[in-house]
Amino acid sequence: MKITVPTLLLDKEKCLRNIRLMVEKARRNGLRLRPHFKTHQSAQVGEWFRQEGVEAITVSSVRMARYFANHGWTDIMVAIPVNVLELETINELASRVRLHLIVVNEEVVPILQKGLNHKVAVWLKIDTGYHRTGIPATNYKTIDNALQTIAATDKLEFQGFMAHDGHTYKQTDAEAIRAIHQTTVDHLNQLLERYKGQFQTIELSIGDTPSCSILETIVGVDEIRPGNFVFYDLTQQHIGSNTYNQIAVCMACPVIAKHSERNEIILYGGSVHFSKDVLSQSDGSNLFGRVVAMTGNGWTDPVEGINLVSLSQEHGILKATDEQFANYSIGDIMYILPIHSCLTADSMKSYLTLEGERLEHLAGLPESYLQFPRPHSVWRTCECLTSEII
Amino acid sequence: MKITVPTLLLDKEKCLRNIRLMVEKARRNGLRLRPHFKTHQSAQVGEWFRQEGVEAITVSSVRMARYFANHGWTDIMVAIPVNVLELETINELASRVRLHLIVVNEEVVPILQKGLNHKVAVWLKIDTGYHRTGIPATNYKTIDNALQTIAATDKLEFQGFMAHDGHTYKQTDAEAIRAIHQTTVDHLNQLLERYKGQFQTIELSIGDTPSCSILETIVGVDEIRPGNFVFYDLTQQHIGSNTYNQIAVCMACPVIAKHSERNEIILYGGSVHFSKDVLSQSDGSNLFGRVVAMTGNGWTDPVEGINLVSLSQEHGILKATDEQFANYSIGDIMYILPIHSCLTADSMKSYLTLEGERLEHLAGLPESYLQFPRPHSVWRTCECLTSEII
Repeated sequence: MKITVPTLLLDKEKCLRNIRLMVEKARRNGLRLRPHFKTHQSAQVGEWFRQEGVEAITVSSVRMARYFANHGWTDIMVAIPVNVLELETINELASRVRLHLIVVNEEVVPILQKGLNHKVAVWLKIDTGYHRTGIPATNYKTIDNALQTIAATDKLEFQGFMAHDGHTYKQTDAEAIRAIHQTTVDHLNQLLERYKGQFQTIELSIGDTPSCSILETIVGVDEIRPGNFVFYDLTQQHIGSNTYNQIAVCMACPVIAKHSERNEIILYGGSVHFSKDVLSQSDGSNLFGRVVAMTGNGWTDPVEGINLVSLSQEHGILKATDEQFANYSIGDIMYILPIHSCLTADSMKSYLTLEGERLEHLAGLPESYLQFPRPHSVWRTCECLTSEII
Repeated sequence: MKITVPTLLLDKEKCLRNIRLMVEKARRNGLRLRPHFKTHQSAQVGEWFRQEGVEAITVSSVRMARYFANHGWTDIMVAIPVNVLELETINELASRVRLHLIVVNEEVVPILQKGLNHKVAVWLKIDTGYHRTGIPATNYKTIDNALQTIAATDKLEFQGFMAHDGHTYKQTDAEAIRAIHQTTVDHLNQLLERYKGQFQTIELSIGDTPSCSILETIVGVDEIRPGNFVFYDLTQQHIGSNTYNQIAVCMACPVIAKHSERNEIILYGGSVHFSKDVLSQSDGSNLFGRVVAMTGNGWTDPVEGINLVSLSQEHGILKATDEQFANYSIGDIMYILPIHSCLTADSMKSYLTLEGERLEHLAGLPESYLQFPRPHSVWRTCECLTSEII
């Protein structure tokens, strides 16, 4: 397939290898792998997980839950504090899948109990140090109250405690990541000890890609929810989660101008394609992507002497050495590893595999595609139409 | 219409006022207004321009050009160095609209001459100080050569010199913006003087929102191409281009958690909604948006004591004073002015007007919608289907 515009390439072999490594690690450690599908948001990539035996998934929105429920997933955690304004869709979902919701504040519990028509699993989100959201791990009074309120409902089945160590993303040292992980596991196990008399089963769930990638042995939890590992990216490589060779997505962008006076190459490919996520370099400069070369069956590790250093809406600027500057011409396609694969995929809205297959991304489907309620006839027409056009 | 998920609101009255002010300024100065439609990317917003007499537009991709050509626009500049890999679509477009392409490097000229089936207008992009792309304004040898090569073709009609003063975006002082603008106008007029003997007509085109907003009198050019002014945003307000009251788009996001231990409110609304663009504050902190309150017919200026200070993929964190923290509850919708309206609109992919009308955005249309070539029957089916579902 001829590439003429910015395109997100997906190396299926690398992706399958990433999936299999994590599936195997979870199996070896006796853990349920509940991968976070917000990274790929693709029904087809989801199937690759299913083929490896994965049955439970994590998503970051109710809309994403509907999308994957429509593709046959029946055990779904919406890993964001529950949005009580979406009760209508939550009810529709809870009528057909095992739905897991996240509670952070006690006051949502009576709203859920009143509004739900079906039972759902609920997890208390615990803040073990990231400080984005969650009840602080030693704030027992708040946790006591929340659990009492949950226990008094008949719609909310308390499932356990979950945490997300987003602060591992700021680390570049494996020992620091291990320490963060251990603190979280200790906190969650203290809560397990405290409350295990009150509930028949309490599960513990964690799930950042750095911990799940760097640790070989994971004990003291029941479930892991990493997401980014399916593709990895330059941020995770910088953290130490993966090698360059494991990065499974790559942007392909046309060269549209060259500036010999300052060794800069202009790409058709900007912030609406890559997203604005950036890796700050030790010299204070910004890195928005690194250049690789295509081989017969994939791409190389990044080449030296040329980097994506700036993005505006549709333009990207590469800064090069004399030698690298001479290697690329207007009309060439250049290949760039992304800084943050989740946001790049969400911006690009579809994938092209190295075999030339187009894979869908939820963000590329029209808003109306998942609109609820939806007449069955329109649903069918739309699916036919999509397959006809693509 | 009940809002339950992150939604981009559009105040049509403010937007129309922004459009009319710029149309009137262009008319008063005897300039052609060729607004940059990359900010809104919406057929319906385009109609509001048409109603004010605008006939020529700017876009940032060939895809966007096709979208607006399909909606009846016939004079379109693709304001990015021409992507020679898209000649097939360029030819299709050039067969039905007056298409303006941008040349930066001489070597694209023979590629265009060979590949084009129809005449197009070409502009030389001149770098007058922004240093993103363009031929340096005093690099006469390069400009001489490029113009000679263009003059020798029969498909490329040299239209004039164009520049984009993107460096005004880094200013917060009207005098600095005036100085940048004047430098650019001087450079372009020097080129006009130098080459006016060789070409029957040479037009000069400029077009950043700060200059076009701040200057009342614009002389020495033929055309202005501002884009962001249709909505404005906090970045432009910071620069001095607009008042808060002129910002015509606003995010509506549900409150999903509250953290009284640190006066933080968690929104359902993250970087996939707002984009990651940020305003660095003088104290070193990051600003991702400011809170407004809804009134009977729109929204207020930003309130003090509460700001959007952090974004992850789907979460936003607001930091508040005690008083402001108490003002918002879980399940409320909060209203946030965006940092960069172009990227927020591109992320959100549609608009909801205050009157409850849904407006489309090109990014929200399926990739296949504009695919080329496209069977006419499928095109019609898809349009019917879209109107049926929405």
